[in-house]
Formats: sequence, structure tokens, C-alpha cells
Amino acid sequence: MGNARVDQEALAHFCREVFARLGLSQDDAREAARVLVAADARGIPSHGVARLRRYVNGLRSGLMLPGAVCETLMETPTSLVVNAHGAMGAPVSVRVMERTIAKARTSGAAFASVRDSNHFGIAGHYAMLALPHDMLGIAMTNTAALGVPTFGRAVMFGTNPLAFAAPADRERAFVLDMSTTVVTRGKIEVCERTTKPLPPGWAVDRTGRPAADARSLLDDMQERRGGGILPLGGLGELCGGHKGFGLAVMVDILCAALSGAPTGPDVYDTAVSSARVSHFFGAIRIEAFREAAGFRADMDRMLKRLRETPVAEGEERVYFAGLKEFEQEAECARRGVPLATQTCAMLAGVGQEFDVQAPDAAWDKGTVGP
Amino acid sequence: MGNARVDQEALAHFCREVFARLGLSQDDAREAARVLVAADARGIPSHGVARLRRYVNGLRSGLMLPGAVCETLMETPTSLVVNAHGAMGAPVSVRVMERTIAKARTSGAAFASVRDSNHFGIAGHYAMLALPHDMLGIAMTNTAALGVPTFGRAVMFGTNPLAFAAPADRERAFVLDMSTTVVTRGKIEVCERTTKPLPPGWAVDRTGRPAADARSLLDDMQERRGGGILPLGGLGELCGGHKGFGLAVMVDILCAALSGAPTGPDVYDTAVSSARVSHFFGAIRIEAFREAAGFRADMDRMLKRLRETPVAEGEERVYFAGLKEFEQEAECARRGVPLATQTCAMLAGVGQEFDVQAPDAAWDKGTVGP
Repeated sequence: MGNARVDQEALAHFCREVFARLGLSQDDAREAARVLVAADARGIPSHGVARLRRYVNGLRSGLMLPGAVCETLMETPTSLVVNAHGAMGAPVSVRVMERTIAKARTSGAAFASVRDSNHFGIAGHYAMLALPHDMLGIAMTNTAALGVPTFGRAVMFGTNPLAFAAPADRERAFVLDMSTTVVTRGKIEVCERTTKPLPPGWAVDRTGRPAADARSLLDDMQERRGGGILPLGGLGELCGGHKGFGLAVMVDILCAALSGAPTGPDVYDTAVSSARVSHFFGAIRIEAFREAAGFRADMDRMLKRLRETPVAEGEERVYFAGLKEFEQEAECARRGVPLATQTCAMLAGVGQEFDVQAPDAAWDKGTVGP
Repeated sequence: MGNARVDQEALAHFCREVFARLGLSQDDAREAARVLVAADARGIPSHGVARLRRYVNGLRSGLMLPGAVCETLMETPTSLVVNAHGAMGAPVSVRVMERTIAKARTSGAAFASVRDSNHFGIAGHYAMLALPHDMLGIAMTNTAALGVPTFGRAVMFGTNPLAFAAPADRERAFVLDMSTTVVTRGKIEVCERTTKPLPPGWAVDRTGRPAADARSLLDDMQERRGGGILPLGGLGELCGGHKGFGLAVMVDILCAALSGAPTGPDVYDTAVSSARVSHFFGAIRIEAFREAAGFRADMDRMLKRLRETPVAEGEERVYFAGLKEFEQEAECARRGVPLATQTCAMLAGVGQEFDVQAPDAAWDKGTVGP
């Protein structure tokens, strides 16, 4: 990771222009750009603008269809099923989450399942859309199969993230956004680039035994020869690997079985394209349960106490879910978004291709030593 | 664990009679007994009739009130908030889950938050009540604080289980029922009894460093001197401990913050009594999304594939969530429920006290060698 920093607005503008050149409407281009930049700003660069090239490829190859018209397959005051017909994941997801929130405003709770969509970036982004409405927000997606069941050796589910957001008052909101596997592929790739052995508990090889070599694991996963990432909880049942396995399947049920889409190993990337995936969104209105002000006050008490809980020897702080990301976001608003050198180079290349001026990458003074 | 086996019906009858002697209505006594025996039958003896003595103590000490009248604090077509006023957890939970299901039948989805309740046994029992109605079932509870946040050293949340049930057709239902900590206290106690060191990744001592000695950990937790069980994902962030931490807090938010009840470290057992706890229940009607028959058929395909996925070298089978428990249940229906010798002795003692005949503990022929 280099220490270039790029102004957030300029970066979003750049991505928006590229997406517009690829045929997205102004609205869709704006939402797609916003989610990417939000990921970088929240400290999740694996889901940020570094993916722009993959989106460009997806839109060019026809996997992602800029003009796809979403079809509502089912709708009730509390439910929604949408066939995205290959649209980009982010704009579809924003619109569906907004419809879900509108339903929850009237009904108290609503859920939506979306099929035939594409990579939607960070799940937390959609869950957080519920927060200004005094609602609990939920967002999930299945992904290309990379995860191996407890006691198995073949990939049978994705990294299947789930996000849950709950508003507070003076404290930052509680925003859980987690893959249900131990790690995502990005962290395996980091081990490969740095030629470090995989930590125990992250993955198994094609025999189902603990994997140490990132390179051969990535190859085996790509070719679907066996081996993959372990569910949260790690190897076997000793530390609860079966729990992460269950959570991953739960996400698949809500996203894909509920919308009639492919599940498990039927969702996979090929050499040339990403997988079509399914999502699940939910919103629950707090005032259907109690006065929102009281809830927010109780959340403040709870979150402050977690922030201030005694720290383990040798550690510095305890973070409740989302706190680190909010702090990162505040820093990025001040100093710009940190981008790896290779990401800056990729952006420059994409910019040239589409005749869009790439944003200036200022050398960050904050991290340069004296 | 001895190998006595007790007839399921006789065991349930016995517990029901004891609860009735303690002032529970026939209905409440039946539900309370049913949940306990279901736990034993499903292979979760830590939540089974071995707890009968604690329930007896709870009812005698006034922590659990046999005649408590539940109060509905808030109600809409999709939501319900109940103050259980110290009632027994199981009968209250069955009634609230049934009301939640009735609401979901009309509204498509409904949720309930219950405060001032008591230990409700296995969460999966309530989630499964949704299955015959072609609904997804959800159940959660907070518990006495035993879990330590990532990078912390004091208990700040319970083992906070969550359960999610989804129906299939020919396959057994998918029933995830998991604590959000690596393990529950029961497994720490087993290490203590067998004087085995705690496996790495299970718990930290009062300095926040990995704990190996079960005895001193249990003492420290009881006296709240620091130390406790780690969240699912284990120590630090390397294997996702912060995810389990987030899940545990999510459960606390849905159970307790949403019902205005005590959260986190304010929920604790004392030497003489268990903690008053909060629950959360949900039901989502599948036909609000798609035809139930199609959903069930897709679930069959998904679950069969998980059952039949290639097995890791040295392992025997892959189980999807709930499968092991259903198989255990079928065996117990045939052969009786397995009970530890000390549990049988406790039941005999309770029987004498209340003048109720304890069920026969037949020596199980199935597990005795030739």
C-alpha cells in the first residue's frame, strides 16, 4: 500500500464519469461511484475503487448490463422480490433498500430479496441507509463460492457477508459488516503477494487439511479442484467453525433460495467474469417497538460502555462494530482517501481509456516521517 | 456422561408434574417440560433436564414467578413488545413466538422483543415453531455476561445465542442454533471437571491474555474480576473475533435495547440466582416472497448437496445446521433420552422432594459391549 491520498469528491466524480461513459444513467453512475469510494473511506479498500477495472470489464463483457430494467417479481407491504436482470449491483441495491425502507415506514418491517444482480460492494453501505429513518438496517449478499463446509473439502458457499446497522444518538451508529468466512479472498491474496504462509484456521487445501500455501490455494479455488476458505470459527467444530458455516448458508437462503436464484457452488466466477449474485435487504422501524429517543439513549449507554471497557494488556482500544470505520471516514474526509500505488496507476489507465481526467494523487504529508 | 436412557414421554411427564407442584399452570408446565426434554433429545444436554434443579431454585427464590402475568407494552401488525414480569422463559417464549407467527401470517413478517424473562432453554426450539407454517423462524436471547470483547478483558455480553430455521421438503429443515461466543460456559466446566487446559482461542484471563486454567477462569467470571469467554472467531481480529463480538452485541440490541431492558454487563447471575434476560423472536412468511413449494424444493437441493459434498480426509460426514440434532432426536425417540448418572440422581432427589415418581432409567443396551 502506497500512501497517496486522493480527494474523496474528486475520486467519486472520476468513477461517476467512467460509469457514465459505459452507459450508466447519471443516477446509477453516481450510486455506483459512491459505494466504491465509501469502501475506501471506511478502510475497506478490497471493495473500493481498486475494483474499478473489474467493473469496467463486467460492463464491457455484458455480465453487468448498464441499461438493465429491474423486474418486480413479487410485492406485498412487507416484502419485495426483484430480478435485477444483470444490472450493476450498487444502484439496484440502493433503490431496493430505499423501497424496503419506504415499506417499513408504513408496515413496521420489510424485506427484499434480489436475484440476478452483481457485486454490490460493501454490505454495510445499504444497511446504513436505514439509520436516518430510525430503523434497523440489514443487508446481505451471496458471492462466488469460496468457502468450505466444516469437515468438507470443496467450496459450497460464498464469503456471504451480512450487515446490521442500529442508530445511536451521540455515539456513532453500531454497524456490523462481516463476511461469514474467516477472511475474504483479498486476505489470501495479500499472503500470496507477500509470500507469507496462511495463518492456521483460515483455509483448507484440496484434501480438506489445513492449507499453508496461498498460491496453490488460489489456483485450486480458481480451478475448483477443492480447497477453500474456512467459515468463521475455523477448522472443525472445536472453535465453532460449524457456526460460521451455518451463518453462510443462512445468508444464501435469504438471498438466493428466497428469490429463486442459484445457490452455493452454482455461484462462481470464471476466468473472464464475476458471478451473478443475489442480495437480501431488511428494515425494521424502531418505533414499532419503543420510542426511538429511548432506544437511541440506551444505544449510547451500551456503545459508550463498550468503547470504555478495560483493555487487554498489550492492546490499545476496544472498538464496537463500525467505530473504526467511522473514524477512518472522518480522517479521509480531512486528508483524502488512501490509495495503493498500483490502484492510482490503474485509475490513470482507465482515465486515459475513457478520456476522463484521473484525480490528483497528493503525496500524503500525514504519514511521511521527519 | 453415563449411559442411562430414559423414555422421552416419561421424562417430560415428570418435569411437568414438578413444575405443576411449583405453581405453574398445566399449559405452562407442559411447555417448560417440553423445551427441556427437547434439548436432551437434540443432543444439547447442557440445556436439558440437567437444569431442572436450577429452575426449581429459581421458582422457589422468586426469580422465576409461576403466576407472572405478561404485559404487552407495544403491539402493531408486525411487532410486539412484552414484559414477562419474571415469568418462566419457556412458556412465555412459546406464547410470544405463536403470536409472532400469527402476525406474520397476516402481515408477511413480524418480530417480538421480550424483557424481564428468564432462561428459555434452546433458541432453536422457538425458531422451529415457524416451520410448519412455511415461515422462516428466528429466535435469540441475551444471557448473563460471560463474553469478553475483542481486545478487552472484562465480560460485556452474554453467550447470546441466535437461531434461524428454514423449512425444506424431503430433507430435514435447516436449523442454525448457535451461541455467538466460541463456546458456552458448559464447555469450560467440562474442562474444569476433567482438569484439561482450555484450548487456545476459547477464553482470556483477567489480564486479557489467553486463559488456560478453567478453574480460575470460572472463579474470575463468577466474581467478575475480569476474564471470560471469547466471541466466535477467537482472540483478536486475525480469525475474525471482532465478528463474533459484533454478532453478540447485535443479539443484545434486538433482545434488550429494543425492549428497553438491561444490556451487556447489567445482565448477570448471582450466587443465588440466574439473570433476568430478554429475547427476540421473528417469523417471515415464505409466500410473501415466492411459492413455498418452490422454496422447499430449492432447499432440498441445497441441503442434499451439502450433505453429500466431498468430505475432508480423516473426517466422516458433513452436516448442515440441524441435521445432527434431527438424527439424534430420531434415535432418542427409539431408544430414550441419554442422561448422565448425576442427572438421574438429581431427578430422583427432586422427585422425592415433590413426591413425584422419577422416570425409570433403563440401562441402555445399545451402547453396552458384548
